[in-house]
Amino acid sequence: MKRIAASIITIGDELLIGQVLDTNSAWMAQELNKIGIWVKRRVAVGDLWEEIWNALNEESEKSQVILITGGLGPTADDITKPLLCEYFGGRLIMDQAAEANVRHIFETLLKRPMIERNLKQAEVPDVCTVIQNKRGTAPGMWFEKDGRIFISMPGVPHEMMGMMSDYVLEALQKQFTLPTILHRTLLTSGIGESFLAEHISAFESALPDYIRLAYLPNYGMVRLRLTATGTNRPVLEDQLNAHFGRLKERVAPWMAMDEDITMSQAVARLLKAAGRTLSTAESCTGGYIAHLISRESGASAYFKGSVVSYSNEIKEKVLHVDPLTIQTAGAVSEETVRQMAAGVLRELNTDYALATSGIMGPDGGTKEKPVGMVWVAVGNRQKIIAQQFNFRFDRQRNIELTATNALNLLRKFILEDA
Amino acid sequence: MKRIAASIITIGDELLIGQVLDTNSAWMAQELNKIGIWVKRRVAVGDLWEEIWNALNEESEKSQVILITGGLGPTADDITKPLLCEYFGGRLIMDQAAEANVRHIFETLLKRPMIERNLKQAEVPDVCTVIQNKRGTAPGMWFEKDGRIFISMPGVPHEMMGMMSDYVLEALQKQFTLPTILHRTLLTSGIGESFLAEHISAFESALPDYIRLAYLPNYGMVRLRLTATGTNRPVLEDQLNAHFGRLKERVAPWMAMDEDITMSQAVARLLKAAGRTLSTAESCTGGYIAHLISRESGASAYFKGSVVSYSNEIKEKVLHVDPLTIQTAGAVSEETVRQMAAGVLRELNTDYALATSGIMGPDGGTKEKPVGMVWVAVGNRQKIIAQQFNFRFDRQRNIELTATNALNLLRKFILEDA
Repeated sequence: MKRIAASIITIGDELLIGQVLDTNSAWMAQELNKIGIWVKRRVAVGDLWEEIWNALNEESEKSQVILITGGLGPTADDITKPLLCEYFGGRLIMDQAAEANVRHIFETLLKRPMIERNLKQAEVPDVCTVIQNKRGTAPGMWFEKDGRIFISMPGVPHEMMGMMSDYVLEALQKQFTLPTILHRTLLTSGIGESFLAEHISAFESALPDYIRLAYLPNYGMVRLRLTATGTNRPVLEDQLNAHFGRLKERVAPWMAMDEDITMSQAVARLLKAAGRTLSTAESCTGGYIAHLISRESGASAYFKGSVVSYSNEIKEKVLHVDPLTIQTAGAVSEETVRQMAAGVLRELNTDYALATSGIMGPDGGTKEKPVGMVWVAVGNRQKIIAQQFNFRFDRQRNIELTATNALNLLRKFILEDA
Repeated sequence: MKRIAASIITIGDELLIGQVLDTNSAWMAQELNKIGIWVKRRVAVGDLWEEIWNALNEESEKSQVILITGGLGPTADDITKPLLCEYFGGRLIMDQAAEANVRHIFETLLKRPMIERNLKQAEVPDVCTVIQNKRGTAPGMWFEKDGRIFISMPGVPHEMMGMMSDYVLEALQKQFTLPTILHRTLLTSGIGESFLAEHISAFESALPDYIRLAYLPNYGMVRLRLTATGTNRPVLEDQLNAHFGRLKERVAPWMAMDEDITMSQAVARLLKAAGRTLSTAESCTGGYIAHLISRESGASAYFKGSVVSYSNEIKEKVLHVDPLTIQTAGAVSEETVRQMAAGVLRELNTDYALATSGIMGPDGGTKEKPVGMVWVAVGNRQKIIAQQFNFRFDRQRNIELTATNALNLLRKFILEDA
C-alpha cells in the first residue's frame, strides 16, 4: 500500500513575525496521523499572493493531500479565497447554506447588525465542495485537481477543529485506503538521553523496519515513542505491543509512565481511582500546578483547590507557616515547604497535598539559594516528604520544570501510599 | 535595498505527528524580524535524510539565510549532523572548545559519568564555523555556500535561544546591510473584525505602500498591527507613529491597549505604578489567572496570592462566602462571585481583587446556566463590580477567554479608580 502523504500550509504574516504560535498544525497532524495519513511537511507562508500560489504548487508535487488554514477572514489582508478561486479556475458564488449560517450567527447568536463584508464570507468558488462552519462565519472549501485534494479552512483553531472533526477526517478516510499507524509512548525520569540510548541500543537495532523508535527529551525527562506502520491492525497491534513490552522491561528502573499522557493526567487517574482529594500550596509556581490539574475536565471530583501563597504574609496567615521558620530557615526551605503542605492539607481538608517554594529568577537568587533552587513537599495526614531540586533555566522553564517534577513526586507518593 | 529573506527549517518527526508544539520558530521569527530580516517561510520536516536534504536545496533557492533547528541529539534518530557534513562536503572532527564544554557539563554540572556518545556531540564538520552552546552539549554550526548562510542549532528551546542571543543575531547583522522593520500594535475590545475593517477602511486604503495593516483576532478581541519597512530609522519611526496616531483616533471607542503586551502585563504595569497589590479568588479559572500574573518576573511586588476555591467548601471556609448564597443563587452567580472577591480582599489583605466562577465544560451545564456562562467580579475595599460573560467554546478556550476578559475588566477598574 502506498503511503498517503499530506502537507499542511498555514497562511498569515502573524506566523512569520512570531506574533502568534501555530497550534493548528500540531493538532491537525495528530488527527491525520490517527487515521493513517502521514504528514510529510508543514509550511508557513505570509499573506502574499505569490508565496501562497508557489506553496500550493510545490506541496501538491510532494503530497496527495494539502490542508490549508488561515487567510479566510473578512479583511483586506485575507487573500486566500480569491487566490484559491483563481488557482482552481472558478468564480465566486454565494453559498446558500453558508449564507444562512452567517445570518443565523449575527441575528441569533451575536444579536448584532450585519454588514456586506460579513455576507461576503458566505461566497465560495463554484468549483469547490463547501464545508460548512458551525462555529464561525467562514466556510471551508474542498478542491480536487490532478488527483490532489486541497482543503482550505479558517485559521481560528476551534473553527478548524470543528470542520476537521465533523467532516474532513471522515471524507479523507472514504477517499483513500489508508495504512494503520500506531504509536506507543513511555516516559522515563532520572536518566539522560544518551545513557538511555546506550542502554537500549541492542533493542533499537533489533527493531523491524516497520517500527521506528524516537527520543523526545523534555523537562529533564525522556519520552520514548515506538511507531508502527502496517495494514492489518490486530496483527500490527500485537507486534507493537510485543516490542513495547520488551522496551518497558529494558527501561523499567526509570519508567514513570507507559502511555502518552501528561503528569497531571497521571495524577488525576490515580486520585480518581482511589477516590481521594488533592490541594496545592504554591509559592514559586504561582497557581500553575492548580491550572494544570483543573484544566482537565472533571477535575472537581478530586481537586478541591489551592492556596497560592506568593507573599510570606499569606504563607503565615492562611497556611499557618510559623513566622519564625520563615525568619530563620527562609521561605525557600525544607521546613517552610513542609509546613505549607501540612497547612493546606488541614485548611482545605484534602487527602493529599503538594507544596512548592523556590527561586524562579531572573532576580532573587543568592549564593546560598541560587536561581532555580526549589523545595517541593508532597504528603498526606500521616507523612510528608520533601525534596530539593536545582534547575538552571529561565523563569518560564523553571516554573514548568518545578510543576512537572512536583507532580511526578506526588504520583510516586500516591502509588507507594496505595 | 534588497530585503534579506530567511527560511526556518525545523527537523523532527515529533513536529509532524503533533506530539510537540513548535515554539522555536515563533521566537526565532520575532528576533529576526527585530533586526530587519524577513522570515519568508517556515518549514517542518521529519527525521528523514531525503526530506531534510530537499528542504535545504529548496529553501536556499528562496532565502539567503536558512536557519535549522533540531536533529542534533546523541541518538540514532538524530541525523542532521552527518547530513550537513555530507551536504557541505566536509568531514567530522572533534572541536576542542565543544569537547571542553561537554566535559564541563558532565563533570561539574551534572556530576555524572560520560560516555562515548556524549563526547561525539562535540564533533563538527570541518567546513563550518562552530557556535558554542553554553546551555547544552550539542554545538551549533554556521555554514556558507553559494552566497547562502545556513545555521544549524539544537531543537531544545533554551539552547537555541542562547545561541541566537549570544552569537547568531549579531553575526547576521554584521553580514548584511539590513532594512529597518518597525511594528506598532494596538488592541481593541468590544467590536468585531468586520465592523472594525469597515470603520477603518478609509484609513487602510490611504496607507503608503511601505506600511501594512494586519488584523489579529483572538479571545474575542482584535489586535491591529502596523508594519513599516524602510531604511532611515528615525524618519520611519516618525511616519509610523503618525499613522499609528491616526489609527488610535479612529478606534478610540474600542481601544484597550496601544502596545503589544499581554493583558496581565498591562495590569502589572498599572499596579506597579500605583504601588497597589492584588489577589485573586478563582473557581472556574483554577489558578490560571494567578499563573498569568506570577509568571511575570517581579510579580511579588504587587501580587500577594490567590485562593483557588475549586470546591464550594473552600469558597465557604476560606473565602467566607455565605453557604446560603451558594444554596440559593448557586456557585455560578453574581452574589457568589462578589462575596468571593470581598472575601479574598479581606483574607489576603490586598488593594484590589478579582474573582471568577463559571461553567467551563464540557460537563456541568444546565438550561439556566449553560457551558460558557461565567461571572467575574473585580473591586477594591470601596466598590466591587460584577459582569456576566457567555462564551461558547471548549474548556481550554473558555478558561483562556475568562482570564483575558477578567483581567481586562480589572484593568479598566484600576484605570477608573486611579
